[in-house]
Amino acid sequence: MKVLIVHAHPEPQSFSAAMCRTAVGTLAAQGHTVTVSDLYAQRFNPVASAADFAERRNPDYLNYALEQRHAQEGGTLAPDIRAEVDKVLACDLLILNFPIYWFSVPAMLKGWIDRVFVSGVFYGGKRIYDRGGLRGRRALVAASLGGREHMFGPQALHGELNGMLRHVLQGSLGYVGFDVLEPFYAHHVPYLPEAERAAMLEHWRAALGALDARPTLPMPSLDRFDDTFRPLAGA
Amino acid sequence: MKVLIVHAHPEPQSFSAAMCRTAVGTLAAQGHTVTVSDLYAQRFNPVASAADFAERRNPDYLNYALEQRHAQEGGTLAPDIRAEVDKVLACDLLILNFPIYWFSVPAMLKGWIDRVFVSGVFYGGKRIYDRGGLRGRRALVAASLGGREHMFGPQALHGELNGMLRHVLQGSLGYVGFDVLEPFYAHHVPYLPEAERAAMLEHWRAALGALDARPTLPMPSLDRFDDTFRPLAGA
Repeated sequence: MKVLIVHAHPEPQSFSAAMCRTAVGTLAAQGHTVTVSDLYAQRFNPVASAADFAERRNPDYLNYALEQRHAQEGGTLAPDIRAEVDKVLACDLLILNFPIYWFSVPAMLKGWIDRVFVSGVFYGGKRIYDRGGLRGRRALVAASLGGREHMFGPQALHGELNGMLRHVLQGSLGYVGFDVLEPFYAHHVPYLPEAERAAMLEHWRAALGALDARPTLPMPSLDRFDDTFRPLAGA
Repeated sequence: MKVLIVHAHPEPQSFSAAMCRTAVGTLAAQGHTVTVSDLYAQRFNPVASAADFAERRNPDYLNYALEQRHAQEGGTLAPDIRAEVDKVLACDLLILNFPIYWFSVPAMLKGWIDRVFVSGVFYGGKRIYDRGGLRGRRALVAASLGGREHMFGPQALHGELNGMLRHVLQGSLGYVGFDVLEPFYAHHVPYLPEAERAAMLEHWRAALGALDARPTLPMPSLDRFDDTFRPLAGA
């Protein structure tokens, strides 16, 4: 299996960075090929802008998705985007490894999605969800956060954490066709004693050893919708 | 009323930019004072990193929220962050005006939240939701998107759009104490003929003229939770 880990934490000694290293070591020991995009270390540019397109389909008005499609077709995607697109297309499993900032990914990782999930490759027209460009691949969110487990759930303070991250799990990964595995969350990390952090890394290692048994999240199927994406009668 | 509009679109001729200008004109004509943070025009830096802190509480290990709190207390917040914090603290109404990228805000705006929603000012310890630092202020999301209205809803393809944006509406704006108004969504914008775009801007103008009648979204109340954020019996 080829694995791409996209890691986005500004502190190399962080627990999130330790999770990244644990994943590299564990997966490599299983015989998998692992590639890491360490976005802070790469000084990745997260800002989608006109500067991404050397040759414009419409130089007078920027529609980012249309220019992505044009650049993809013409082979003029910016080199930093092209490199990340190729890494994703080469992988069987994508792991997004990050600290939760504001119940979402850090801007650094959001910008990786904005710029790398290219129209015409990852999705396009009716090619979304179970017809998305990345179908047949798996994705796993591995996130650390300050909040405790009891703060999340149907009756809990913040509601469901998977619900907070639905824009990533369904709206980004599921949308482009990934089978999205149940996320791995490391709760309360900044406040844990060292022994509990070590135990959490062991849980993570065990989860990585049992990916085939890990449940996938339910996603919409286009079989239930017509050509204009309206629900089919009886579906 | 003092209004801050935070606008994040890379194309100055976009419909989103027209929404921003419409809001400035409409609200100013009503006698309000309007400030705009045009993040792309400002070349705002969306990347939270160690570079944000000239004087570190802990130079050996970056905990971003702790360094924010330290910088806030010591008066050493980075000037670009301080300027945005002050604009937010001066406003009665915050409008986030943006195109929806991947069922969320563009990375540019996510980074504004990551860097500007400073621990110790916007929130801290138990000061969240109805005890958040920004309570008494209102916030409104004004977003354009490609999807059509029928693609969103309980039985629709993508589910509820407010649900996709829960990390912003509840997890960011509600979390720091804003009364969050029902969002204004401009659907299907890239595909609309000019007349329908003009009609949409009129709807937007009308919405801005009736903000006091606009419903607010339900948010958690800390009255229903104990000191550890567990639900109170019977609450």
